[in-house]
Amino acid sequence: MNGRALGSGNRLMNYEQMLSDALDTVKREGRYRVFADVKRRRGAFPKAEVVKGEAAKQITVWCSNDYLGMGQHPKVLAAMHEAIDLVGAGSGGTRNIAGTTHYHVELERELADLHGKEMALLFTSAFVANEAALSTLATLFPGCVIFSDEKNHASMIAGIRNGRGPKQIFVHNDLADLEARLQKVPRDTPKIIAFESVYSMDGHVAPIAAICDLAEKYNALTYLDEVHAVGLYGPRGGGVAERDGVMHRIDIINGTLAKGFGVMGGYIAASKTLCDAIRSYAPGFIFTTSLAPAIAAGALASIRHLKSSNLEREQHQERARALKRRLAAADFPVISGPSHIVPVLVADPVRCKALTDVLLDRYGIYVQPINYPTVPRGTERLRLTPSPQHTDADMEHLVNALTDLWSQCPLALIESLAEAAE
Amino acid sequence: MNGRALGSGNRLMNYEQMLSDALDTVKREGRYRVFADVKRRRGAFPKAEVVKGEAAKQITVWCSNDYLGMGQHPKVLAAMHEAIDLVGAGSGGTRNIAGTTHYHVELERELADLHGKEMALLFTSAFVANEAALSTLATLFPGCVIFSDEKNHASMIAGIRNGRGPKQIFVHNDLADLEARLQKVPRDTPKIIAFESVYSMDGHVAPIAAICDLAEKYNALTYLDEVHAVGLYGPRGGGVAERDGVMHRIDIINGTLAKGFGVMGGYIAASKTLCDAIRSYAPGFIFTTSLAPAIAAGALASIRHLKSSNLEREQHQERARALKRRLAAADFPVISGPSHIVPVLVADPVRCKALTDVLLDRYGIYVQPINYPTVPRGTERLRLTPSPQHTDADMEHLVNALTDLWSQCPLALIESLAEAAE
Repeated sequence: MNGRALGSGNRLMNYEQMLSDALDTVKREGRYRVFADVKRRRGAFPKAEVVKGEAAKQITVWCSNDYLGMGQHPKVLAAMHEAIDLVGAGSGGTRNIAGTTHYHVELERELADLHGKEMALLFTSAFVANEAALSTLATLFPGCVIFSDEKNHASMIAGIRNGRGPKQIFVHNDLADLEARLQKVPRDTPKIIAFESVYSMDGHVAPIAAICDLAEKYNALTYLDEVHAVGLYGPRGGGVAERDGVMHRIDIINGTLAKGFGVMGGYIAASKTLCDAIRSYAPGFIFTTSLAPAIAAGALASIRHLKSSNLEREQHQERARALKRRLAAADFPVISGPSHIVPVLVADPVRCKALTDVLLDRYGIYVQPINYPTVPRGTERLRLTPSPQHTDADMEHLVNALTDLWSQCPLALIESLAEAAE
Repeated sequence: MNGRALGSGNRLMNYEQMLSDALDTVKREGRYRVFADVKRRRGAFPKAEVVKGEAAKQITVWCSNDYLGMGQHPKVLAAMHEAIDLVGAGSGGTRNIAGTTHYHVELERELADLHGKEMALLFTSAFVANEAALSTLATLFPGCVIFSDEKNHASMIAGIRNGRGPKQIFVHNDLADLEARLQKVPRDTPKIIAFESVYSMDGHVAPIAAICDLAEKYNALTYLDEVHAVGLYGPRGGGVAERDGVMHRIDIINGTLAKGFGVMGGYIAASKTLCDAIRSYAPGFIFTTSLAPAIAAGALASIRHLKSSNLEREQHQERARALKRRLAAADFPVISGPSHIVPVLVADPVRCKALTDVLLDRYGIYVQPINYPTVPRGTERLRLTPSPQHTDADMEHLVNALTDLWSQCPLALIESLAEAAE
């Protein structure tokens, strides 16, 4: 941008200045993001390299959402190679205009089967799936009130906001508050309850069955984001709703191909009519190039594998329990929850960032600081995601490093170490 | 969905019924979309197979946006294979949390260089890039008025709408109307002029230099969507703005990796401050898994190839001119325009759909009907996209097939043929 000045005389205004001011706010609050340039190594997960200038440093990744390491699974990689050899790189079009390949068709069938629904619809990401589905449903059901858990992901918030219909934000996982709000809306007003199964920053799990009870009592539809659960929970990896035996009571399930399944892309699964309506009305579905065939092929292989193999899920849960046990024994403030996510509360954005800088630089431990707006201010944290591939030795190294920094270092010292690490 | 009935007594309401009604509207208007299930064959583009039940039929694709056939280029495919072998399938996280790989870093550098900007930012698609960038800019420049060409793509409309700021829709490519609107807004109000270089459904090209003149005169920023031009125009594939020598006058360029470059994903290129602000504030950038490394690697190879090779661009333009010449000689109503897109006006959604059904079934010619909402009602069309790989024989077959159907068949006959083809 060429820094054009707007206006004249006293009211000089400059676009770049406005943007700099916005960035200064982020920096002042200690939540300016610096991307770590990571090179994963196939077959070595969670080991990787981080690139800094010319140098590369060996690290252990502790914050990946490739929860089961499926992004390295030989079946997934073979399927991707094969698809590239057979059909090439991109799909070449939107789903409607030349961009529906046989991989997309098969993958949607597989996802519908995974969730016991009539149909599934692919999107370029689960963010887009949530945004497109919720904003379009708000339009298709005129006057529809969306009841949204206060901790819902940014993509659901975007969809609800962009749908511009009335909404009710209920207290996180609070059935009494949800019911009180449902009671106040007339019976003949369309309603959707939008919530997540696993809340990814806290590791909380929703009371899905009880929410379905309320939905039935008040004739609301249920919209469940299983992004941090698909592949990971349930006998076939259908998510927490499958594990809890309530999948058939959920009207719309949202999931991702990028975390438990290790590839990329997102989807919804629901009735044929509902999917067909979203397919026909949502701009975020209609006007975008479909997923590359190799991505669809890789996801298909991953889902099929995890439908029949429980090994990865069992190891994953065991590793999460083991890490929580070790951290609790060392008196770290782990945010408790029944899921695979292990958040350690820091409660200060600057300390959080400095801690992770030193962990990376001195200990080869890669974990990102989780600051606002990903979590509320004052609840900044480290979010650890142990995978089946993290060993006891990896955990011991991590807990020892945290112990060194946490109890022995005042903030000022951590900050000076972090500065030295820059 | 279990078809729950809402309300009681006289006001029975049913979610499925509301959705069915919405679908009936689409069907009644003849614009219900049926996806063709296509199997491309590597190395054989534009030949492919269409899958129907158990059978597969040989076809020629005439509606792909893989304009140059780069989705089949050996360099692109080799780069994708190599990335899968080196680092695996998915990136495993958002850009900030474990999902920035060295491929993303290199690709953003390459894109910044392609457009002569300080920085570029990757998104999962160009739709998301437009939506996220425009909605976020509307927030970062309080009171900003966005001047939007009336033919802008759905993704720009979504971004402008979701930004919720004031907007002015100007007459397509009409400088006088744009200037009249710019004049009415106070000088010290921030302004963005958002437009496309190549309008993908008509093949029109914007008067970029003249719009830049107006932007300078009224101190507005310029936001140019080059989605249907990157890779295809300019000595290095930088787009129409590069070809016209005005790339440096554009503040924000939006592009795709899924069309001319043949892979998937989207981006913006702009000043460092602007990209950094979008990176720091846009939910659609922050809260989504980054592109799979193999996708980034394939796009990188494609851009690098097209930066130094003009052969594909020259062949592409020659093929587009050749097809236009043949269609004009046969008196078809080609919508005139200087670009590579060849739209043939049908002006009726039912006839448009029926024509394409028969083309596919009887002639092995795959071209999608372009109906509302992709184009305005009454301007339904066939949109042909000749590539360097389409031969003279392919063109002759197409023009002959169209001649058979167009002049000799009344609508009723085409419809009955289309029904037989179902």
